[in-house]
Amino acid sequence: MAVKAIEWKNGHVVMLDQRLLPAKEVRRVCKDYTEVARAIRDMVIRGAPAIGVAAAMGIALGALKAKEKSFDRDIERIFHVLGKTRPTAVNLFWAMARMRKVYIAKRVLGVEAVRRFLKEEALKIYEEDISANRQLGRFGAQVLGACSNILTHCNAGALATAGYGTALGVIRAMKESGKTIHVWVDETRPFLQGSRLTAWELKKEEIPLTVVTDNMVGYLMDQGKVDAVVVGCDRIAANGDVANKIGTYVVAVLAQRHKVPFYVAGPTSSIDLNCPSGAEIPIEQRDGREISHFFGRPLAPRGVRAFNPAFDVTPHELIAAIITEKGVIRPPFSHNVRIHVAH
Amino acid sequence: MAVKAIEWKNGHVVMLDQRLLPAKEVRRVCKDYTEVARAIRDMVIRGAPAIGVAAAMGIALGALKAKEKSFDRDIERIFHVLGKTRPTAVNLFWAMARMRKVYIAKRVLGVEAVRRFLKEEALKIYEEDISANRQLGRFGAQVLGACSNILTHCNAGALATAGYGTALGVIRAMKESGKTIHVWVDETRPFLQGSRLTAWELKKEEIPLTVVTDNMVGYLMDQGKVDAVVVGCDRIAANGDVANKIGTYVVAVLAQRHKVPFYVAGPTSSIDLNCPSGAEIPIEQRDGREISHFFGRPLAPRGVRAFNPAFDVTPHELIAAIITEKGVIRPPFSHNVRIHVAH
Repeated sequence: MAVKAIEWKNGHVVMLDQRLLPAKEVRRVCKDYTEVARAIRDMVIRGAPAIGVAAAMGIALGALKAKEKSFDRDIERIFHVLGKTRPTAVNLFWAMARMRKVYIAKRVLGVEAVRRFLKEEALKIYEEDISANRQLGRFGAQVLGACSNILTHCNAGALATAGYGTALGVIRAMKESGKTIHVWVDETRPFLQGSRLTAWELKKEEIPLTVVTDNMVGYLMDQGKVDAVVVGCDRIAANGDVANKIGTYVVAVLAQRHKVPFYVAGPTSSIDLNCPSGAEIPIEQRDGREISHFFGRPLAPRGVRAFNPAFDVTPHELIAAIITEKGVIRPPFSHNVRIHVAH
Repeated sequence: MAVKAIEWKNGHVVMLDQRLLPAKEVRRVCKDYTEVARAIRDMVIRGAPAIGVAAAMGIALGALKAKEKSFDRDIERIFHVLGKTRPTAVNLFWAMARMRKVYIAKRVLGVEAVRRFLKEEALKIYEEDISANRQLGRFGAQVLGACSNILTHCNAGALATAGYGTALGVIRAMKESGKTIHVWVDETRPFLQGSRLTAWELKKEEIPLTVVTDNMVGYLMDQGKVDAVVVGCDRIAANGDVANKIGTYVVAVLAQRHKVPFYVAGPTSSIDLNCPSGAEIPIEQRDGREISHFFGRPLAPRGVRAFNPAFDVTPHELIAAIITEKGVIRPPFSHNVRIHVAH
């Protein structure tokens, strides 16, 4: 049974609460766009493509509930609130831009029609993401074909997307093509997307995996235990620099030292040509309590400060290839990313 | 008030249970050498110099309790059991070798005398470790004199030694010399020696600190937020390769990329000239449950495997200097480590 992080169901947005996995599988029903916004901010749902889908569905839901007499003002409010949830993943802004385009084009047809078109667009974004991931997976499986031991960081799976996944889409496609693989799963502190979410998905797929702490990657590579790295991405700059979950840069630096190819998998909706380089990508800073506390229990002495940047930037020179639904981008990225988007 | 990880008190070995810090300060009284061995294995006490002291006190305690008629057989058993507790920190074997030397030299004087001499030797090892740390700290403070933002991994503090600490000894000495410093504390998964123990010690000393997850070190260095790294060590090979807590190698690789000097602090008792290089240092593999579970709560789906190497090796070419109680060892280490020990 396929993992579904998010669904449009009976006029509501239903999400699997990823904060509780793998211990509990609880679905949250969002009946209002503010609930969708809160779910994105609080990481009930996370992962760049999934955040994009959630924002689109949030707008569709908001439009459905917005009063006719204050419709345009309400729509602006909805866009504003959803746009403030999380700053790094560009898919949020990409999905919102698509929704705004529909809103502008269809506004003349009246409120009922706009509501219908916005919902259709949100569902289209959802469907397109799944098929993009399947396409991306096939390209990735060709690129990584000779590798058996794959390391991944964070969760770029079905849970991080509308379904199938980006980095885990590549791994799923490798398995579907009959390859025998084993996945090293970084636990990915502080939110543990690796040990909680990626391990959960891989186990369901019966793909062999081993969890390690983030600081074990150097040891693994030094021991020759990693053939390739594949990760997802939250934003790809025009020059090929990639923002992704904190710690991705560390893995990339180690991969370079150990001559392990480092691949990034993401849909073209993660590419932001308005960002010339990684330096322009905003890095979300989250509450230090995500580090100093765990299940409400303090890990550090009371009053001790923790610093919690949620992402880092991997410079393009550490990346062997970027895999999208349109194919494979190789260096020189500063030239090839633009070409790839244009075609 | 000074932090005391271990003490000889009323004919018993008393340890602060480091598994419970910072939430609780509980002292464990070991009345038998098997309790000392279990405490070392279960990480009630940890840190290479502290493990050495614990083993020495464990032998003294065992000798005190050993029956006169089976004394020599019991002593062999005590050495055997303590020698099996943890394989990586050489200080354990170094301290045991010192104790054995006393045992052999004094055996002829009778059981009572041997017991007294073994206890005296254990206390001497304890006292010498504290003064070595203070001396080491002064040398380190000179080396790191120009640095304000220091990053450290794991805990190489008073808790990891007989007192004062190695890496934290350097930081303490910097503070005592009037410098204004701020310490970046890696949380150090899976045992969290950073956020639990180092943060606890620094807070007691009123030294400003910020906790980060291990995977944030790349981001910190990329942002220019780290002036120097100082870590402890579990074993220094003859060529200057250093085994230390898992993740140390990752920090060293990042430090090299960002031109941040990487220092190792440890007493000469951590140097093992019998190990030509890091490749010969045994790396302890611990139970995967330390990663997959937390306070008894599962972090990963049931049945998922975790791999848990407790240490890694930092090759000497990534190390700017090794600081001991005798001074500062600079490259070329393959020559200078031996010279340093000999003088």
